[in-house]
Amino acid sequence: MAQEDVATVVEKSVTFTAYKPQLIVEAQKVGDAVAFYKAVFGAEETGHSLYPKRKADQELPHLVSAELNIAGTTVLVSDVSVNSGSNANKGSMPAILETDDVEAAVAKAVGAGAVKVEEEVEGEEGGVKGKVTDPFGFTWIFVSPAKKSENDENKEV
Amino acid sequence: MAQEDVATVVEKSVTFTAYKPQLIVEAQKVGDAVAFYKAVFGAEETGHSLYPKRKADQELPHLVSAELNIAGTTVLVSDVSVNSGSNANKGSMPAILETDDVEAAVAKAVGAGAVKVEEEVEGEEGGVKGKVTDPFGFTWIFVSPAKKSENDENKEV
Repeated sequence: MAQEDVATVVEKSVTFTAYKPQLIVEAQKVGDAVAFYKAVFGAEETGHSLYPKRKADQELPHLVSAELNIAGTTVLVSDVSVNSGSNANKGSMPAILETDDVEAAVAKAVGAGAVKVEEEVEGEEGGVKGKVTDPFGFTWIFVSPAKKSENDENKEV
Repeated sequence: MAQEDVATVVEKSVTFTAYKPQLIVEAQKVGDAVAFYKAVFGAEETGHSLYPKRKADQELPHLVSAELNIAGTTVLVSDVSVNSGSNANKGSMPAILETDDVEAAVAKAVGAGAVKVEEEVEGEEGGVKGKVTDPFGFTWIFVSPAKKSENDENKEV
């Protein structure tokens, strides 16, 4: 019975709606990276998150992550320190895939030979998140489509 | 005078028209990777190149690279062996940026702190190619926009 359930999940059609490369940078370097990509690639910043506990006397609060549009692709620049506990390393570039069914996507990937590297967890936005490494060495992060809120531009986490 | 020339290049506006992650896989594993991404992500193959010297008695010629559409993004899966001489490693994911001016893009990136890792060279399609590593550890490959030919689907290199 349990096996039948797995088979059902694996056969289920899963839709992937967005591919977002994630650029993981050294702690507190997200701001520098964003400035660099704006200057060199003409990147546009479409959203960001700040560190929650910043000092009042700091002129510029540190960015914990930023969403950029580079040549039509959405790229997420993230601080390695918020990826602790995962196998993320600075200089690594996992790919985020938005999907309508994170659980089915993980099951399908594992069924085809990928290795699950993290339990599905509640993501920052309350969405479910799953992570696998495929047989070729690449990391894929499955997330529910982002829910845009009114104050997304200046939200703090 | 030479410095003025550099300044002119750096100030020049450069347009980036496409962002294509490149997935570099183990030698002769492009076919397996393509099959995996088709099965798991519903990837569509939009082009490929074959090894030039394949044995006549081989049932399936090896793919040297393939272009896939995954969730709306064009992804290039490439054999590590055709990236010899570069700093590419299997499991690495440089990003390809199509630009109208490869030379100016390299100059702009270097001016902002990136390191040029390869001379501009003639690409496979006859276009110029430049490669830099940015201060955050990521590799960017600048290429001229792809010129689609009639038989792109089945071209052999």
